Amino acid sequence: MKDLTDIPALMDEIGRRAKAAAAELAFAPSEAKTRALEAAADAVWAARADIIAANEKDMEYGREKGLSDAMMDRLMLDEDRVQSICDGLRAVAAQDDPVGAVLEEWDRPSGLHIQRVRTPLGVVGVIYESRPNVTADAGALCLKSGNAVILRGGSESFHSAAAIHACLVEGLREAGLPEDAIQRVPTRDRSAVSELLTMTAYVDVIVPRGGKGLVGLVQREARVPVFAHLEGIVHVYIDVAADPQKTLDVVLNAKTRRTGICGAAECLLIHRDVVDTIGQGVVRALLAAGIEVRGDETLQAIEGVTAATEADWGCEYLDRVIAARVVEDIDGAIAHIGRYSSNHTDCILTEDDAAAERFFERVDSAIVMRNASTQFADGGEFGMGAEIGIATGKMHARGPVGAAQLTSFKYLVTGDGTTRP
Amino acid sequence: MKDLTDIPALMDEIGRRAKAAAAELAFAPSEAKTRALEAAADAVWAARADIIAANEKDMEYGREKGLSDAMMDRLMLDEDRVQSICDGLRAVAAQDDPVGAVLEEWDRPSGLHIQRVRTPLGVVGVIYESRPNVTADAGALCLKSGNAVILRGGSESFHSAAAIHACLVEGLREAGLPEDAIQRVPTRDRSAVSELLTMTAYVDVIVPRGGKGLVGLVQREARVPVFAHLEGIVHVYIDVAADPQKTLDVVLNAKTRRTGICGAAECLLIHRDVVDTIGQGVVRALLAAGIEVRGDETLQAIEGVTAATEADWGCEYLDRVIAARVVEDIDGAIAHIGRYSSNHTDCILTEDDAAAERFFERVDSAIVMRNASTQFADGGEFGMGAEIGIATGKMHARGPVGAAQLTSFKYLVTGDGTTRP
Repeated sequence: MKDLTDIPALMDEIGRRAKAAAAELAFAPSEAKTRALEAAADAVWAARADIIAANEKDMEYGREKGLSDAMMDRLMLDEDRVQSICDGLRAVAAQDDPVGAVLEEWDRPSGLHIQRVRTPLGVVGVIYESRPNVTADAGALCLKSGNAVILRGGSESFHSAAAIHACLVEGLREAGLPEDAIQRVPTRDRSAVSELLTMTAYVDVIVPRGGKGLVGLVQREARVPVFAHLEGIVHVYIDVAADPQKTLDVVLNAKTRRTGICGAAECLLIHRDVVDTIGQGVVRALLAAGIEVRGDETLQAIEGVTAATEADWGCEYLDRVIAARVVEDIDGAIAHIGRYSSNHTDCILTEDDAAAERFFERVDSAIVMRNASTQFADGGEFGMGAEIGIATGKMHARGPVGAAQLTSFKYLVTGDGTTRP
Repeated sequence: MKDLTDIPALMDEIGRRAKAAAAELAFAPSEAKTRALEAAADAVWAARADIIAANEKDMEYGREKGLSDAMMDRLMLDEDRVQSICDGLRAVAAQDDPVGAVLEEWDRPSGLHIQRVRTPLGVVGVIYESRPNVTADAGALCLKSGNAVILRGGSESFHSAAAIHACLVEGLREAGLPEDAIQRVPTRDRSAVSELLTMTAYVDVIVPRGGKGLVGLVQREARVPVFAHLEGIVHVYIDVAADPQKTLDVVLNAKTRRTGICGAAECLLIHRDVVDTIGQGVVRALLAAGIEVRGDETLQAIEGVTAATEADWGCEYLDRVIAARVVEDIDGAIAHIGRYSSNHTDCILTEDDAAAERFFERVDSAIVMRNASTQFADGGEFGMGAEIGIATGKMHARGPVGAAQLTSFKYLVTGDGTTRP
């Protein structure tokens, strides 16, 4: 049907269709959107054998390409994982519809009544890598928020994404919503990404979800607004007033629970006055847990700590490695974070309210924590339901991007023949 | 001091200073910001003779350049206008500090307490044209919201802006805040604008405030995020269920109160069934008020109505002219608006709640009104105090841009040694 070799024409058609669908979706009834997502969940479960077969093709492609075990694990779908895709769709279906929600309202002396209400953004472009569940999550969140979406998944998950996408379209059809509301770029050709990034006439915002290569491409080429999603260079600072037990619990959890997620701790900062007490205990516990600790000169005195180099500050390992450094005081920690953090999530361990307040005020990251594991940096843990990603920029969305963050707003002003003097 | 001919170096220094000031300003006490704005108001009033003298130089330059009377009027400062600049500064000083405000907070089953609090954006670049008061308004709003600002005024208001800017800096100094918090580009060289639009390392957002030429330049060149501010192509739709008297009052006010502001009505849409009743009365009243009415074929039957051409739909006159067209029904009006509106402000006149609801739902403009003059499209009339402009885009800010719209937010998460299972 479509010519898959003429990428500009293909993308132009996808964009045009998305914009038309968005205009209709903007005022689609909540019930229809809910119904579409429930029907999509049913369709995914009914098609689980086909989806797993499609995934097997992707796994074969991945083996041929020599993907790492971690990548292969992210790519793999079994019945349990298909079940969680369905659960995710049902969870978004059950959420409140953000569109039309009154954010605030007030009366004016002029007699006007003003409401600020949520509206969809329009057309969202989502560019992601290997995880097949993103197809369902991103499609569902965009639909819930009344946006049309253009999904561009990684070439590794090509067949899995197509199979899941077909179920989403089935849901739209059953609910009587435009099928173009959730479109998928049906080619592995990378130039489609460049097209998507510059389609300002059709696309309102790009949500990139992937590693450094994708982020760099987006920064260079995007003419459409982007929800920046940089790395998670996550710091944990052990203050002079930290509680030893809480610190041990939180640091171990923040580093070791899962090392491959963006909320995993990557750098430990230790107040000089507690290096020999809490600091030493924590470092030894990390080493005992099989974590490589790359420390500054002071910390190298602890047996097993290897030497950190300049490249270790601001590094996202996503692995069983942590950088560690002694700081003179809380301001030293804040300065280190200001310089090396990716403004994703940073944490202070302290029992001192004034220190926590200073840290909260002066660390300019999307998520700033006190006495809590940075592994909580997640839309689900925040109570937002699914998330498309964690925005590290400050424009429009910041932190976990759920349905509400995919909206804009407008003002509804009601008078009664009211004129301005 | 600075080399005013090496524009890239000049702008780089301004950007670097702004970023440093922003880091400090982000946690400046509310009292210091209030004090700075009050002191700036005092300084402006004390320097009124100098400001008016500087303005006289600009007026001379404007006369030489042959500026229109309207432009000259916008440029002119007298003691009354200097007084309103002072009033504006004091009004922003009296507003609540948006920074640190808790937007929402909640507890999670995990034991975490989460707050979403307002933060500054960082560095704001404001590019504007002739009106000298924008220097004070923009500087004040950015300071209130904890942002450093780089002001780039039009060449016409060069001397007036410099004199007002000096007073703002005096205010910062008196309050012990960094003087670089409010900087002004001290050259008329237009290449400084291009620099400002691409300084992604220093500038977080650009607020352009000006006519088509500026908007086009910004769209072509900006690499920094922009709060889009297009024209005000404002529509008023007279529904079949409109009240005759309210309609007459609102349309006349919307068109004639002031024709040169962005909330002035530019196009009248009339339901076919009320053309011969309400429609005819309104058109005659507009003509009697000295407004040129450019109508479609049906309306040309009314004596005095001239013929509209295709170019009249979607035209921002900012003058004593209005386009007028008959539509078949409310959906015809919504379709016309969807095609020609600049998504600034559009209005329906109706006593029918269902019609109003349909219009509110389906017209995707920053401000959608019912039975109220579009001249109310203004931050002050909305109760926001001063505004930097009215954003017509959907990313981040929309509608009147006051201090709150110049902020982002972050999540503050508090646990008690809380770990994620």
